[in-house]
Amino acid sequence: MFLSVGEGVEGIKEGDHVLTIFNGECGECTYCKSKTTNLCAKFRVDPFQSVMRNDGKTRFLTQDGKPIYHFLNTSTFSEYTVMDSACVVKINPEAPLNTMTLLSCCLSTGIGSIINTAKIHQGSTVAVFGLGAVGLAVILGAKRRGASKIIGIDINDDKRIKGETFGMTNFINPRDQTLVHEKIRDMTEGGVDFSFECAGNLDVLREAFLSTHDGWGLTVVLGIHPTPRMLPLHPMELFDGRTITGSVFGGFKGKTQLPLFVDRFMNMEGLKLEEFITHELPFNKIDQAFELLLHGKSLRCLIHL
Amino acid sequence: MFLSVGEGVEGIKEGDHVLTIFNGECGECTYCKSKTTNLCAKFRVDPFQSVMRNDGKTRFLTQDGKPIYHFLNTSTFSEYTVMDSACVVKINPEAPLNTMTLLSCCLSTGIGSIINTAKIHQGSTVAVFGLGAVGLAVILGAKRRGASKIIGIDINDDKRIKGETFGMTNFINPRDQTLVHEKIRDMTEGGVDFSFECAGNLDVLREAFLSTHDGWGLTVVLGIHPTPRMLPLHPMELFDGRTITGSVFGGFKGKTQLPLFVDRFMNMEGLKLEEFITHELPFNKIDQAFELLLHGKSLRCLIHL
Repeated sequence: MFLSVGEGVEGIKEGDHVLTIFNGECGECTYCKSKTTNLCAKFRVDPFQSVMRNDGKTRFLTQDGKPIYHFLNTSTFSEYTVMDSACVVKINPEAPLNTMTLLSCCLSTGIGSIINTAKIHQGSTVAVFGLGAVGLAVILGAKRRGASKIIGIDINDDKRIKGETFGMTNFINPRDQTLVHEKIRDMTEGGVDFSFECAGNLDVLREAFLSTHDGWGLTVVLGIHPTPRMLPLHPMELFDGRTITGSVFGGFKGKTQLPLFVDRFMNMEGLKLEEFITHELPFNKIDQAFELLLHGKSLRCLIHL
Repeated sequence: MFLSVGEGVEGIKEGDHVLTIFNGECGECTYCKSKTTNLCAKFRVDPFQSVMRNDGKTRFLTQDGKPIYHFLNTSTFSEYTVMDSACVVKINPEAPLNTMTLLSCCLSTGIGSIINTAKIHQGSTVAVFGLGAVGLAVILGAKRRGASKIIGIDINDDKRIKGETFGMTNFINPRDQTLVHEKIRDMTEGGVDFSFECAGNLDVLREAFLSTHDGWGLTVVLGIHPTPRMLPLHPMELFDGRTITGSVFGGFKGKTQLPLFVDRFMNMEGLKLEEFITHELPFNKIDQAFELLLHGKSLRCLIHL
């Protein structure tokens, strides 16, 4: 990536190797100074209409006289972009960028949800609903944390092999098994300790919630839910001792923690991160990359100029 | 209380002083052996149709040929009752029964939700929605844990004085202030760390959820919600870093922990537990006691034979 650094920006210079993060870290706001969150006041804005924070403007062309806004603070579906330095993370120049770019979203989100949000312990039982790149990263994280049972759930049978590559111990296709949560309860003496919803589907979310053990089950919502529907959970169902929470970017503070994560990954054997990159296409075929993703044919597609 | 002990029951004898608990602890099931829950497999049943576990029968008379079931495993709205020994807790005979009976529900639920469920820390900010006996016990617990701000919310202005008695620092009547969560965010630089819903009302639950700080807020549901409506929360609202959970009997394991709690309370000054008991009536006026409760006139009414 060719990097040009604006006036007054500290800590990054031309030639540095960097990752882009949508979940910026300004380092100075109440959130950034809190140990308990990775939100940042600078980026608590509409992800579809984000602007540069210093002057409230975009840096792109206009269309029909209207500004083209930044998307998710990064706008990386373009040849060139302009970003706030709080969204640019300097990493070890020896790290392989092709796989480390996975840390810009899916890998951090999945693994972080295991270690920062759920804080799973050795021997935990886990169910992962939706085996896209995020779900597979959850499996990878659970495996490395010593989970004793990792159940993957997907309507696409092709995901079974990928799941097993990263440590999944059991696979359920909901098309063969309508009441998934009952099947999971049978397999785990009453339910898993932790479930992760990575499908962006509210019916799936309910199954994920009910698949945890009453008394202590935790459900972590990672899927994006562009629906007007509310949570399909009854308040009294919380009384059974189940908890539900969300996780954004796996709870990682990007600027502070990702460089350390990169160094750790470089010295870790058997990670198989290259398994996440199923396709490679030139930039002018980016629409084809979205088609592949939409139809469950790809996990991540590497785009080059 | 006159106690008669059945054959084969261990650990309790006639003449002991006991508390009754709806949330029994058999001590032998998976739940009882887990450190993470106070549920008990023996009592995971319909609270309105509970029976004696050893033979699946009730111990009361029949009405029109149908059995009169136990209610909430205790059936204490009667002159005499029969209970499973897992629901009977032996306590220090020197403890004052009139106030210690509060530990059979509201006091354990409220204080336990602070120390076991929310695990609030010194300096935490807290909002308590609904100032009945449970809500006031939450305030009492928060105060003793060193909360820096304790905001009480109730539509009944009379609750202000009671709230202050137990440590409430601020009071909001939603009838004067429609958007309660915005008011609370203004008062606390973005929201409280913990909110407790003790009203059994879903609109209140939503206000409680939104009144917590994004990034780390936890909402604990204590109210009973006899409604078919689902949680009025959007899945994406969890992405703001808020969590929601329920708490039953404050997370206490009754048989194991209540006796220690009783001893601790006996040696604690300034608790003002007698403030919870606002009325005293004979058993034949028990309906009047319910009327007082229903109209917000009483907190707890002591019933004597």
